[in-house]
Parts: sequence; structure tokens; C-alpha cells
Amino acid sequence: MICEAPCVNIAVIGLGLIGGSVLRALATAGHTVYGYDVDPATRAAARTAAAQAPAAARWQVAGSVPDAVARAELVVVAVPLPAVDEVLYQLVSAGYTGLVTDVTSVKEPVRKLVEQRLSGPHARLAGFIGGHPMAGRETSGFTAADPDLFTGCAWALCLEPDTSLADWLLLADLITRLGARVVPTTAAEHDRAVAAISHVPHLLAAALAASVADDRLALTLAAGSFRDGTRVAATPPALTAAMCGGNAAAVKPALAKVTDVLADAAAALDSAHPIPQLREWLTTGAQVRGDWPPRAHDRATLPARADVLLRLGRVGGWVTAVAPDRRTVSAVRPA
Amino acid sequence: MICEAPCVNIAVIGLGLIGGSVLRALATAGHTVYGYDVDPATRAAARTAAAQAPAAARWQVAGSVPDAVARAELVVVAVPLPAVDEVLYQLVSAGYTGLVTDVTSVKEPVRKLVEQRLSGPHARLAGFIGGHPMAGRETSGFTAADPDLFTGCAWALCLEPDTSLADWLLLADLITRLGARVVPTTAAEHDRAVAAISHVPHLLAAALAASVADDRLALTLAAGSFRDGTRVAATPPALTAAMCGGNAAAVKPALAKVTDVLADAAAALDSAHPIPQLREWLTTGAQVRGDWPPRAHDRATLPARADVLLRLGRVGGWVTAVAPDRRTVSAVRPA
Repeated sequence: MICEAPCVNIAVIGLGLIGGSVLRALATAGHTVYGYDVDPATRAAARTAAAQAPAAARWQVAGSVPDAVARAELVVVAVPLPAVDEVLYQLVSAGYTGLVTDVTSVKEPVRKLVEQRLSGPHARLAGFIGGHPMAGRETSGFTAADPDLFTGCAWALCLEPDTSLADWLLLADLITRLGARVVPTTAAEHDRAVAAISHVPHLLAAALAASVADDRLALTLAAGSFRDGTRVAATPPALTAAMCGGNAAAVKPALAKVTDVLADAAAALDSAHPIPQLREWLTTGAQVRGDWPPRAHDRATLPARADVLLRLGRVGGWVTAVAPDRRTVSAVRPA
Repeated sequence: MICEAPCVNIAVIGLGLIGGSVLRALATAGHTVYGYDVDPATRAAARTAAAQAPAAARWQVAGSVPDAVARAELVVVAVPLPAVDEVLYQLVSAGYTGLVTDVTSVKEPVRKLVEQRLSGPHARLAGFIGGHPMAGRETSGFTAADPDLFTGCAWALCLEPDTSLADWLLLADLITRLGARVVPTTAAEHDRAVAAISHVPHLLAAALAASVADDRLALTLAAGSFRDGTRVAATPPALTAAMCGGNAAAVKPALAKVTDVLADAAAALDSAHPIPQLREWLTTGAQVRGDWPPRAHDRATLPARADVLLRLGRVGGWVTAVAPDRRTVSAVRPA
């Protein structure tokens, strides 16, 4: 396939569910893509899959990080948080000087690692822009990778005071062409938001499942509300731990907020009239969930300015396309 | 359709999602079914749908409870808990003397209402057997009713010391023929189990949704774990409040169990090494959810005895069929 936008040479480091899906989606979009994973079996699986892919959407699998990034203009770091620092070290060691983005589920810790690792005299990195596609699944590994994983998904893309707007727009352009909705945000705002809507839900799911560990009757009667409420508890504990533990500072208050709300429910259950009290207590959640996802949207063309983009993200909007001259973006906001 | 089992004249009082689905499923199975709902618009919708149903699977809609139960041998009470007592009163007033079951999501409170209402000198009820099909959805109302709602679903059927085993087996036979898995239990054990796997999940979902009420960025980034973790928060608050508040005595300790587990997660987040601590904490939930629903089962033919049936329910098993002579049941247990 011929790229609609300028084609880029891209290296994807880490070929799990997200990295593998990024690799496949970028290859399908016509970019030249090199993949690498520290696990030889994953590399072998990625090579086998490449040979079976349509010729125009193939990728290459490198045997090392230096080989993967040798011709890259953009590196996508797609390893779990505990492995990010090692990959950054390898990028510096390989003399890589292009743009770097990542897909890790926390952004402040990665930003700090990048500052430490890439601020030395030997690091001449063009720039780093944190990213996070909101496309997790309870499956994992390259075999679960799907080039269509990002269609319609929100993809947070960090815009900090020191971010090059040109680089941000280049990435936003590339990511919107994968079908994703690019949400401009800062690392700190992202981490607070995902603590509430992703990390805490994983903890609630695990706690709910654990609470009936020894109750066979309950597990037999369990149906829809248990199935959905515990779905992400099946995620490998190492991944969930890295995600939640890596964002501990934001997850703690978000979890406390939920347990405070639950304390009100416990008080309602304890009251003389639990049914009307619970009904009142349930109203907010029912309203929020009933209105989500928003049904009506406004479309707008906005100037491609950092303050405008960040405000768009804060009111619940996103970028759907970047104009060829990079002066404006097409945006969508909840009505 | 000709019933495979003896056909029964059945009245279904309350035609919401569950009552409407019971009505349609029983009619499809060939029984003679009369429906009634206190809401005239619901009755009209049920009449319109009956006219559109295949001739062999039609039901009738009565204009009052006495009309609905006039020829019934079995009454299914399918109204929310706060309305159950009024329906029981109407059954007694109408001189109904057959078998009664219900589909309410709590069983001890209904059992107590039945004892109070039907123990008087004017009540000559053949018997009451509490039931609960685990087939809730976030949709509600007759228009959401589905005759296939119970295919494969667990249907708790209460077996108390004073329950007629013959009546229990009659109902179990009828319900297994709707495709449901009949789980023998007591009202008390049922209420503890569903507090953990249904009522608490509803509270967690509502709390999670409420916690991000004012966070537009979070709601835009929200994806799979938020969608699933909050799905049942969209249930009408009146229904969830009746369900949880009507089972307050069992929901309180079940909720406390989950918040205790969450307190351990908060402590892990606070620790010097949150990632390994959380990983350890997450193991139980991942194991429980990974093993659910059980993949392997044993089949057995069991004597139709109350103690055997209750033991079957406690180890996570269920009844799939009742033998024609009512002396044995076909049962399934997790391996």
C-alpha cells in the first residue's frame, strides 16, 4: 500500500498485544516497519506472521535493538514500564537520534525516565512524545495482535511545555490515519485520568473476583454483572501490577475516591430505609453511565496550537485529522 | 407446540424484562400462559407482541390479577421486591390455591413475606418455591423480553426444610426445559451468594461511574475496562436499589469483604515496592477469573433427595433434567 501521508521508517520495540498491533497497523498503512522483541519466541512468531501477511503490509523483524533502529526516523517503545529504561539505554547506545514515542499506560514515570536517560551529552534525541492507545484487552502477546485494534480507539498523545508541536502533529497525523482518536493531554493529566478509568477498574475487578475465591455456589450463580465486573481480572498480574504500581501516586487518590463513594453505599445499607437511600446514591453513576459514551458531537477546525489542543482534551474532545499544512486540525467534541 | 412434559396453566404477574421473558419462554414451550402487569402500557405492548407471535407460542394478557390466575395451576410472581407483598395479597384475595414461584433477586425477604401473607386461615396455597434466574440485563421492560433469555442461564430454585420435593421437582422439570441450569439452594445461601456476585458488582459499577462524573478527559479516554466495569451502572436505580436494599443484610458483609481486599491494594500502592506487592495481591483474582466459568464438568445421575440436591448446589453443580418418574435428576458438577 502507498502511504497517503509521507511514509516513515519506524521501529517498534516490544511486540506484545499493543506493540504487535502497532507494528501490523503501521505496516498496513504502508510505512516501513522493523519490529524487535527481547523474547526469541515472540520474534519467531512475528517473522512467521510477516511471511503470511499481504506483500504490501509486511514488516521486518530485527535481531537486536540497534538493527531495528538503524534506519528508523521514529521509534515506538512498546514494552511494559519496568523494561522501558533498558530500551531507552539501548537506543542511546545504538546512537539513535530520531523521534521516540511510547505506548505505556503511564506517562509521568516514562517522561522522567526519558529525562534522566536522554539528557546526557551522548543523547542527541530529536524528541520524545508520550503516547497511550486506550486499546487494552484481557488477551496478551503477539498472537493476539490485531492491525485494526486502534480503529475508533482513543490514543492519548502528550503535549508538554517542552514538546515540539511539529513532532506532535507528525505523530498525531500518523496515528489518526490508523483510525484512532488522538486526545491531546499532559502526562500528569493523563495519569490522573487513566488511574480513574483503567487502573482502578482493574483493582476493582481483581478484588471482586478474589472475594468469591472459595464460594462455589456463588461462582455457579455468577452471571453478567460478575462476568463484566471481573473481566480484566484475567489480565496477567505482572501487566496489571506494572500499570497500577507504576502510577501509584495517581491510583491511590482515585481508589480512595471510589472507596469513599462505597462507604456511602455501606451507610445507606445500614440505614433504616436502605432502598430509597440506595436509590438516591445510585443516581449519579446511572446518569454518568447512561450518558457514556456521548451520543452527540460537534465538529470543528481548530488552530494547531498547544493551548487550544490541551483545552480540547480537557473538555472531552479529540483530533481526527491534521491538515496537510499542519496549521489546523479537525476536532470533535461532545455536544 | 406440544409440550414434551405435561402442559401447565401458568400466570405470570409482572411483565418486565424477566417476567416478559418467562411469559414468552413458557409460551414457546407450549404451556398455556396468562400475563398481567399493573402498567396498562405494558399490558398493551404484551398484547401487541402476542398477536405477532407464532400461533403455537401465543400468550394471553389479562386485565387483572384475578383474571390472570383464574385457571392457573402455577403463578410466577415477577414484580420488583417492593411490589411482591401487594401481589401476594391479590393472590390470596382472588382465592388462588395453586403453586407459587417468583423470580425476585432476593429470596429471604420474599420467603418472609410469603410466610406472613399466606399463613392466614384464608390462604390455602399449595406451596411456594422461591426462584431466581440469573439473567439480568442492563435493559429493562417488556420490549426487552426475550424467550431465549434463559438458555444456559443458572436458575436458583430454593429448597427449604418445608418445601414439597414434588413441587420442587415439577418446577425444576419445567425450568430445565426452558434451557436453564437449575441450581438447588436455600434462600439464605442464595442471598449470600448473589450479594457477592450480583449486588456488590452493581454497587462497584455505580461507584466507579460516579467517581468520574466531572472528568471529561477521563470519560474520553475510558475504554474496555471502564465500559465493562460500569455496564450495570446503567440499570435503573430503582431496580438496583430494590435488589441491593432488599438484601442489605447479606450485601453489607459482601461489600465489606471487597473493600477489605481493596484496603490491601491501597497498602500495596503505599508500600516501598508497589509493583511486586500488587502483583502478589492480584494473583488470587486472576486465578479465580481465569478458572471461571469452569471448563471441565462431570455428569451424574443423582437421587432426587433434598440433601443430595443442596449438596450439589454447594459444590457448584446444577440439575439439567428431572427423570419422568421424579426419582432421579441428571446433574452437572465442575470437575
